[in-house]
Amino acid sequence: MTIKITGTGSYIPADIERNEDFHNHEFLNSDGSTIKAPSEVIVKKFKAITGIKERRYAKPHFTTSDIATFAAEKALKKANISGETLDYIIVAHNYGDIKHDSIQSDTVPSIASRVKHLLRIENPKCVAYDLLFGCPGWIQGVIQAEAFIKSGIAKKCLVIGAETLSRILDPSDRDSMIYSDGAGAVVLEASEQKGGILAHEAATFSLEEAHFIFFGETYNPKVDDNRCYIKMHGRKIYEFALTNVPLAMKSCLDKSGIDISKLKKILIHQANEKMDEAIVKRFYELYNMDMPDGIMPMSIGKLGNSSVATVPTLFDLILNEKMEGQAINEGDIIMFASVGAGMNINAIVYEV
Amino acid sequence: MTIKITGTGSYIPADIERNEDFHNHEFLNSDGSTIKAPSEVIVKKFKAITGIKERRYAKPHFTTSDIATFAAEKALKKANISGETLDYIIVAHNYGDIKHDSIQSDTVPSIASRVKHLLRIENPKCVAYDLLFGCPGWIQGVIQAEAFIKSGIAKKCLVIGAETLSRILDPSDRDSMIYSDGAGAVVLEASEQKGGILAHEAATFSLEEAHFIFFGETYNPKVDDNRCYIKMHGRKIYEFALTNVPLAMKSCLDKSGIDISKLKKILIHQANEKMDEAIVKRFYELYNMDMPDGIMPMSIGKLGNSSVATVPTLFDLILNEKMEGQAINEGDIIMFASVGAGMNINAIVYEV
Repeated sequence: MTIKITGTGSYIPADIERNEDFHNHEFLNSDGSTIKAPSEVIVKKFKAITGIKERRYAKPHFTTSDIATFAAEKALKKANISGETLDYIIVAHNYGDIKHDSIQSDTVPSIASRVKHLLRIENPKCVAYDLLFGCPGWIQGVIQAEAFIKSGIAKKCLVIGAETLSRILDPSDRDSMIYSDGAGAVVLEASEQKGGILAHEAATFSLEEAHFIFFGETYNPKVDDNRCYIKMHGRKIYEFALTNVPLAMKSCLDKSGIDISKLKKILIHQANEKMDEAIVKRFYELYNMDMPDGIMPMSIGKLGNSSVATVPTLFDLILNEKMEGQAINEGDIIMFASVGAGMNINAIVYEV
Repeated sequence: MTIKITGTGSYIPADIERNEDFHNHEFLNSDGSTIKAPSEVIVKKFKAITGIKERRYAKPHFTTSDIATFAAEKALKKANISGETLDYIIVAHNYGDIKHDSIQSDTVPSIASRVKHLLRIENPKCVAYDLLFGCPGWIQGVIQAEAFIKSGIAKKCLVIGAETLSRILDPSDRDSMIYSDGAGAVVLEASEQKGGILAHEAATFSLEEAHFIFFGETYNPKVDDNRCYIKMHGRKIYEFALTNVPLAMKSCLDKSGIDISKLKKILIHQANEKMDEAIVKRFYELYNMDMPDGIMPMSIGKLGNSSVATVPTLFDLILNEKMEGQAINEGDIIMFASVGAGMNINAIVYEV
């Protein structure tokens, strides 16, 4: 038995927020002091580091569970199965449903229950739950589906990553330009075909790193409330990721028994273009190789960082030939890899 | 190989909130109208239905991750293992960390990452994640640990249920008297001893039932904000639970191959005394039996409904001989069962 992805789907929100839309923001340092540069210059520098030109925000009337459902519908259709045949619906997210006019996260019922409700699935044996694991949550959901299928608990699982980070950002923080909204989904099935999931790796670094990404107050000293937003210590994350992600990727590839020359694509969490490139370069350095051209498809320029949604969305876009110059074909060996709040790292080696 | 619980721990918050402490509340109907009875009468009626005399609230300076850690420390000590040997830390909760002076749920990093941080566990191979599955979350975490161990992904897992419902309640809602805070934890290990987890059952009913427990505004019409609180449709939940929980329990017991006469204890989620009794009575009716005396230990009278924490806390209290007239001994067959937001139902048959 193998475990294969039989369908993918993604939802890219319609509203485009361009870098120029941030020109009127007053960006502040974390101590509340003004950054001594015009916003245009800050935005330009941001683009040079992150590669982000624009990002997507969900329409005000949609929440995470809505966009998760849109992606799920497509994945089920592609897999050509009825939702009633699913054993599990796993939704990875981090902040639950946040209505556009609210500062509260709504997580009861779980987002997975809401998605199941919206998909009109009746079968009570289809168990729906949420998984919180930072940005690597979607890959971790795939690993959990693998465990359920391997242990005989499930045969078909729907794994979704969905997030609306636009609802949780501090406009005075330069990092607010990173975040975006999105959803991606896959159907995983026990299969008699060859390939599928060949190996996985997962790790949590929390002794020193737990609060590198955290929930903190605005940088704006004029605002006097205790409302919190997504915040990060960018420099620390960069150093942490560069040290630990390549090693986890190598550990995963070595477990799979696949030679690195056979690796066709690396679908890495779209966190920051410069950081992602540095990670993949260092991964190849561990094998005394240069990073091959085109090994690392990037969607961040147009889609930003939508947390748990980036990897499944990227996979879906490539399979649907929506990424110029990129293709994934049957029999290809690819790697999924991610890093994020926790700090968590994970990777999967997968034969298409 | 079997999967056994090798250690348990619980944390019962120090602050006792007695029924009398609600006498000064102005209880309202869901439409904002005043309930035509003095608070004392409402509280007395509440006690007659739910069995709750008092409940526990966490100290203001503690959050869910703190109390989860207290329970986890005890479980690790009881299991006599170092936290460094754990493969997984699974924390079931529903609302994340809510500071006593905040209305926002803080879920990044995950509560599991925070617990791992507070336990000072360094080993990055110990993977920490959160699971949202309503009140049945802790039992579902045990089921997930079972899958990891069975599939060879893990050998030792720490599964915690922790919640601070006192931070999310609407004082004008009679149901606010139900909710309490608490944490329970177990260590699960692959074992060569007999017994352990014999069968499990899990289900999600969301077509009609998804929003039976939900996040809604206060009943108080004088309050003009969009702040939300835990809310439930009690009557619908009662009818749903009475129909479906006994069937799920029977399905689980039948899967285990254990004769009902061998069942020593049922540790059911402490939701509401009358409802729990009706569920267990109906479960025995499915076998044409009367409910045996003492089969269903209840802690709700003194501890209230602490969501995911009730079942592991009850188990820990009995093992530590802190429940008068109740005991669980080696070789006993017991059942864990729960129902809650989702609506989710689950059960485990376990040989101690």
